[in-house]
Amino acid sequence: MSLCPVLIAGEWRAAKNPVGSFAAEDPAQKKMLPETYPVSGAEDAEAALVAGSAAALELAKASPDVIARFLELCAEGIEARANDLIRVAASETGLPAEPRLKSVELPRTTNQLRQAAKGARERSWCRATIDTKLNLRSRLAPLGGPVAVLGPNNFPYAFNGVAGGDFAAAVAAGNPVIAKANPGHPGTTRLLAEVAIEALAGSGLPRATLQLIYHLPEELGHVLVAHPLLGATAFTGSRRAGLALKESADRAGKPIYLEMSSVNPVFFLPGALRERGPALAAELSSSCSLGAGQFCTNPGIGAVVAGPESEVLIAELARAFAGGTPGVLLGRNVPKAIARSLEVLVAHGAGILCGGKEVDGSGYRFESTLLRVSGDAFVAHPGPLQTEAFGPVHLVVVARDAAQLVAIAALFEGNLTGSIYAHSGTDDDALYTELEPVLRPRVGRLLNDKMPTGVAVSAAMSHGGPYPATGHPGFTSVGIPASLTRFARLESYDAVRPARLPAELRDANPTGSMWRLIDGVWSERDVVAAG
Amino acid sequence: MSLCPVLIAGEWRAAKNPVGSFAAEDPAQKKMLPETYPVSGAEDAEAALVAGSAAALELAKASPDVIARFLELCAEGIEARANDLIRVAASETGLPAEPRLKSVELPRTTNQLRQAAKGARERSWCRATIDTKLNLRSRLAPLGGPVAVLGPNNFPYAFNGVAGGDFAAAVAAGNPVIAKANPGHPGTTRLLAEVAIEALAGSGLPRATLQLIYHLPEELGHVLVAHPLLGATAFTGSRRAGLALKESADRAGKPIYLEMSSVNPVFFLPGALRERGPALAAELSSSCSLGAGQFCTNPGIGAVVAGPESEVLIAELARAFAGGTPGVLLGRNVPKAIARSLEVLVAHGAGILCGGKEVDGSGYRFESTLLRVSGDAFVAHPGPLQTEAFGPVHLVVVARDAAQLVAIAALFEGNLTGSIYAHSGTDDDALYTELEPVLRPRVGRLLNDKMPTGVAVSAAMSHGGPYPATGHPGFTSVGIPASLTRFARLESYDAVRPARLPAELRDANPTGSMWRLIDGVWSERDVVAAG
Repeated sequence: MSLCPVLIAGEWRAAKNPVGSFAAEDPAQKKMLPETYPVSGAEDAEAALVAGSAAALELAKASPDVIARFLELCAEGIEARANDLIRVAASETGLPAEPRLKSVELPRTTNQLRQAAKGARERSWCRATIDTKLNLRSRLAPLGGPVAVLGPNNFPYAFNGVAGGDFAAAVAAGNPVIAKANPGHPGTTRLLAEVAIEALAGSGLPRATLQLIYHLPEELGHVLVAHPLLGATAFTGSRRAGLALKESADRAGKPIYLEMSSVNPVFFLPGALRERGPALAAELSSSCSLGAGQFCTNPGIGAVVAGPESEVLIAELARAFAGGTPGVLLGRNVPKAIARSLEVLVAHGAGILCGGKEVDGSGYRFESTLLRVSGDAFVAHPGPLQTEAFGPVHLVVVARDAAQLVAIAALFEGNLTGSIYAHSGTDDDALYTELEPVLRPRVGRLLNDKMPTGVAVSAAMSHGGPYPATGHPGFTSVGIPASLTRFARLESYDAVRPARLPAELRDANPTGSMWRLIDGVWSERDVVAAG
Repeated sequence: MSLCPVLIAGEWRAAKNPVGSFAAEDPAQKKMLPETYPVSGAEDAEAALVAGSAAALELAKASPDVIARFLELCAEGIEARANDLIRVAASETGLPAEPRLKSVELPRTTNQLRQAAKGARERSWCRATIDTKLNLRSRLAPLGGPVAVLGPNNFPYAFNGVAGGDFAAAVAAGNPVIAKANPGHPGTTRLLAEVAIEALAGSGLPRATLQLIYHLPEELGHVLVAHPLLGATAFTGSRRAGLALKESADRAGKPIYLEMSSVNPVFFLPGALRERGPALAAELSSSCSLGAGQFCTNPGIGAVVAGPESEVLIAELARAFAGGTPGVLLGRNVPKAIARSLEVLVAHGAGILCGGKEVDGSGYRFESTLLRVSGDAFVAHPGPLQTEAFGPVHLVVVARDAAQLVAIAALFEGNLTGSIYAHSGTDDDALYTELEPVLRPRVGRLLNDKMPTGVAVSAAMSHGGPYPATGHPGFTSVGIPASLTRFARLESYDAVRPARLPAELRDANPTGSMWRLIDGVWSERDVVAAG
């Protein structure tokens, strides 16, 4: 049995003393795929850290134009190998080639890479700040060590440890990446790494700018995120795994950025339901079924006030849920995890209106499942009833009255998003005014009359939120320039001689158009020396 | 024995079931001061959290102008009560009334408050970002819970939990503060709180915007920083206490900003020493003696290359150290801690050139102490030889050659600052080029030909640095607007109706001059609706 090579110190080579091996499974066929990948041991991890640390020093000296070119070459390489990437990702994840992989996620990924390239080239992300009177200058700078990126199972390109959003942000900010593949799609990750290695050669960046390990035993994951040579970690995945890694990273004083679970509550105010209830049911059920519900922004909980308009919504939802064909799930563990979550929900008072069982057949599937629970039960068991069921599952909470709806909002943990649907006129304004201040501090992104499943790659995006949706409420993993600032140190230069300053802090604007805060004024101009 | 009241829920009231009491000592007289303060128990902490949490909701709705006015009234109140403040702080800290307290620290503190007020009023700190095409808008917003501020012993005004830099930043960002006094200067803190309570009344902010507890048992400190109602913590103090609190806050997912120990290495390159060695010795010894060495940016370690010019520096330093009068230290524990640190340094090869003993007499004093150690010893024991001796102590590391000087730089832990003195011409350029990339990622602020002890309140300041100087390398505790961003969440508004947006994100610029990033362009203008 020959194991696929890992990418370490710029070379594809056999894993050294791997501690195991694994293969991916085609979840649509329930069939193991032929390639076998190593579970790396301490030697691979250590070698990647040492090489990444050396690359960090080189990368800190690299021109932002070269870094940008690398990211653009990654995007071009992905386009050139799109057919392979779609074939392999479809087989490893069960996600449909069209439209999802080819027309949605792949272009999103190349768009992210190109936006990151633009951000790197513009340099404005580093918030160069110049105090001419004191000759004190600061900017955000690369971390000085590689960034470990651990991607999730649900986006084989867009959040992949190689070529995904965290990768693009870390590299654009001038840091090498040590990617740990998600074991659900190692072949996709390998292909992306092949693209990246070619792009490194084409751009002239050090080859150890990217290193790839397919899998690590849990204890080595902890060593990695806490290692003295590491710059920071970006993790997208389950709360259990994320919090465990956080503890190790925190203890070592290493930044770790986590995007964990979120149930993304959607509040339907009574006026909106009276006005357009059936349309909202269609909108919600369609959002719930995107990616078979396996989105971090999947709307997992809806909240309504008891009344006939809410019964209409629920009935329409049940009809839509029962009518749809459940999508293939990402792997064999997903339906098991859904079933476990449903047990928790049901044990705390939720009733299943439709669905509730794994679907037998050729692929891993779970019936689209709609649950209902009273506001009283939610108030009594807010923790268990916020259990995430990662898949096509939605729980409607029916508050006894408007006051209880607000009380329910106050019980939500930190979430990535929260939506409020309101009457298009003023019917719901009074309740909105009560609800919004309670919901707002609990979510990263607040939406009006909109489902949360679209995560635009925009400077104004917050794909983050309060704990435990993430580990720090001040950052976002999507959106440039903000996502880059996670992978940076604030460094200040005090009376440093002009020729010794980094280009971003010299008097001359290095690009002619970089935004800098000069004596309190954002400007694209050169510094005019103070009197 | 009557205990001074605590300030909770807007009222000065007796501590409820305090777990103990304490008094401050006049370190210049070695005499206990008459006032007795409570060590608060769980009831006070819980009451402060509940009231602070309610105040957070109110404060989030307050106008930035009102918040700014409060901070300005604090500054005015401090000036009005300057005589009391100086008398009490001098008695509690032993710091000289002139110039330190009256002409340096008090004006610095009022300046910080006024800069924070200006920052709050301008609103640019919140990085409002608007994507007109997607109608997606984001800003940094208050945390939704109070900020616990734990101040250090060495700056009774400027870093005080009440009216100091962290307080000003937290309030300017829209958060209430729960201050825990430093037990070294409870009376000063109480006076500052009296000023602040008057300022709250004058500005109309909720009275629970500030609450004051004098002391907490260690276990309750852990409860406080991890409490669900808390927004975040700002701590300045020892590494031991800071890391212990960090562990509790991290585990609860609560942001904590720490400014801990730092030895602030100063590298004297050979050309600089040949050119102006005696002047540099004078500059260094004067910087070392500021505040009797009790500055977080005190230069604790100097590094030189072996050679006659370095011997001149060391000889001049020894003369200056031996000639000065040691200042009064902040308290009885300080000389003990210095002695313990010296033991560690000496045990690992450092030799004491002058000083080394506590001074007997009326006040707590320690001889200005100069130590010397070989580069070889430093390379062998880099950890112990970086032990901070908080006081008038300086260790010169003599590298065998230039290469070892660079190797020494590579062994430094994260520090607030690092300085390099070089020949005014080009004599040291080659070595600077070797040294800088190694030192740069290890320090928050890099200085050229300058001592680190001045920490300007400037937008371009980084008073932060890599772990373990702080807990996160991306933030600064001094400098506006950056220091405010620690106490904020990133929140995004997705398709939210215009009238429901916070003022900072509406089309109209709320001040006419607030900086916002609109479609990638920093602008002070209104949003022009996209086509």
